Amino acid sequence: MPRISKYSDIKKPENELQQDYFDRHTPYIECDDQVKEGEIIKIKVKMGSDFMHPDEGTHHIGYIQLWDRETMLAEMRYLPGALGGKTAHAEVDFYIAPMVSVCLTVMAYCTKHGLWQSEAKHVNVIHPEGTV
Amino acid sequence: MPRISKYSDIKKPENELQQDYFDRHTPYIECDDQVKEGEIIKIKVKMGSDFMHPDEGTHHIGYIQLWDRETMLAEMRYLPGALGGKTAHAEVDFYIAPMVSVCLTVMAYCTKHGLWQSEAKHVNVIHPEGTV
Amino acid sequence: MPRISKYSDIKKPENELQQDYFDRHTPYIECDDQVKEGEIIKIKVKMGSDFMHPDEGTHHIGYIQLWDRETMLAEMRYLPGALGGKTAHAEVDFYIAPMVSVCLTVMAYCTKHGLWQSEAKHVNVIHPEGTV
Amino acid sequence: MPRISKYSDIKKPENELQQDYFDRHTPYIECDDQVKEGEIIKIKVKMGSDFMHPDEGTHHIGYIQLWDRETMLAEMRYLPGALGGKTAHAEVDFYIAPMVSVCLTVMAYCTKHGLWQSEAKHVNVIHPEGTV
Repeated sequence: MPRISKYSDIKKPENELQQDYFDRHTPYIECDDQVKEGEIIKIKVKMGSDFMHPDEGTHHIGYIQLWDRETMLAEMRYLPGALGGKTAHAEVDFYIAPMVSVCLTVMAYCTKHGLWQSEAKHVNVIHPEGTV
Repeated sequence: MPRISKYSDIKKPENELQQDYFDRHTPYIECDDQVKEGEIIKIKVKMGSDFMHPDEGTHHIGYIQLWDRETMLAEMRYLPGALGGKTAHAEVDFYIAPMVSVCLTVMAYCTKHGLWQSEAKHVNVIHPEGTV
Repeated sequence: MPRISKYSDIKKPENELQQDYFDRHTPYIECDDQVKEGEIIKIKVKMGSDFMHPDEGTHHIGYIQLWDRETMLAEMRYLPGALGGKTAHAEVDFYIAPMVSVCLTVMAYCTKHGLWQSEAKHVNVIHPEGTV
Repeated sequence: MPRISKYSDIKKPENELQQDYFDRHTPYIECDDQVKEGEIIKIKVKMGSDFMHPDEGTHHIGYIQLWDRETMLAEMRYLPGALGGKTAHAEVDFYIAPMVSVCLTVMAYCTKHGLWQSEAKHVNVIHPEGTV
């Protein structure tokens, strides 16, 4: 199977080059911690926190998949050039409406450096009073 | 070829049912009218303005593609259930960084009612002084 | 909307360059004319008959979609490099099991020259004796 | 991260139900063991050997990805209904043209039971005499 890389594979980056390599391939999830049952919640995903990724013909972020545990919810695909061929943070806002609490992870694919996953992000779903 | 529907195919909806059918399948683009060369611009796409679309197993919004004229920039794909199985506006924020002015259109696919396109949206790219 | 090109847009190629351009972007469907209800039928799609297409970073066949009228059945996506970076016919065999007669078309996307469609191909579905 | 299942996760199926569950989710790769450099080779992928998978609205094979180690080559996506809503083997023939020897694996996604991977399949690429 393709290897899946994760920032926590390394304890502490040995140098800035390694930090750059890991950071720019890491999907970061930003969203609220909770949402009311069935309401829309925005899930922002951004590739890289301090370092940015190229957008070249054979080296770019190919896709960003949003998962709830074993279930894929949605996937953003980029053609090379969507970021003008520049080095930049690939970014997307997903909008989902969970009915029960979810444990989100993101799987992102760099066409040169393979699959990368985010940390898990729990979103608690609040049910109306009197329901389970 | 698959037929591609557009809200302007009808001059004026004959009744609310028809208005509902056309509106909930129409992708609406919201974004700024201009951006500096190479800067990131957010392109919000929302399906339906006044009416919402089901999110059922065999009837949901399957994908939303963002085009600049003949060039596809990115595509969001949804698995059924991403919106909790509820009737809702499918929505996504794309982030692109155009180097030259773009003419955006969206092609969206309903797994039951086929392909739908948005109105075109021009985004003017402002180049630094002294450049073309 | 993105323009959709078709070989029949030109009556007769003016020269070999034009013939090359149209042919190598045209999806050709090869399959049987009929199938028994619910049985698997192989649908071969090949890009180009006499002329082949590049497989370069920013210029390759990005996807091949199989449609039955307004309904998308399946989609093959290629990353650049799947054909070794060489000029070649992109090709795929889909397997479908129609329950009723279908009218197939293919929509293919070249990352440099946009959307192209095939001729329609009818496949007649034979129902067991005594059924409709 | 989403769990990735594999037939070899179980040593020996405990019963036919378990054998069915594992087999029908397993992608099997069939192809030649070698190919000449830059020539097209057909890679058949079939889901399940003895047992078949449903093709229902919220329970079907959603995609089949072909990987060479960390690099995705191509992906087949199915909309529910492509197999007539029947229980059947999802199947696809990829065509690739490797320039160097490849180690293929397939990742397949069931919309109800998550990600599944195949055994690895090596394809040896034969270079013309006198080249490396």
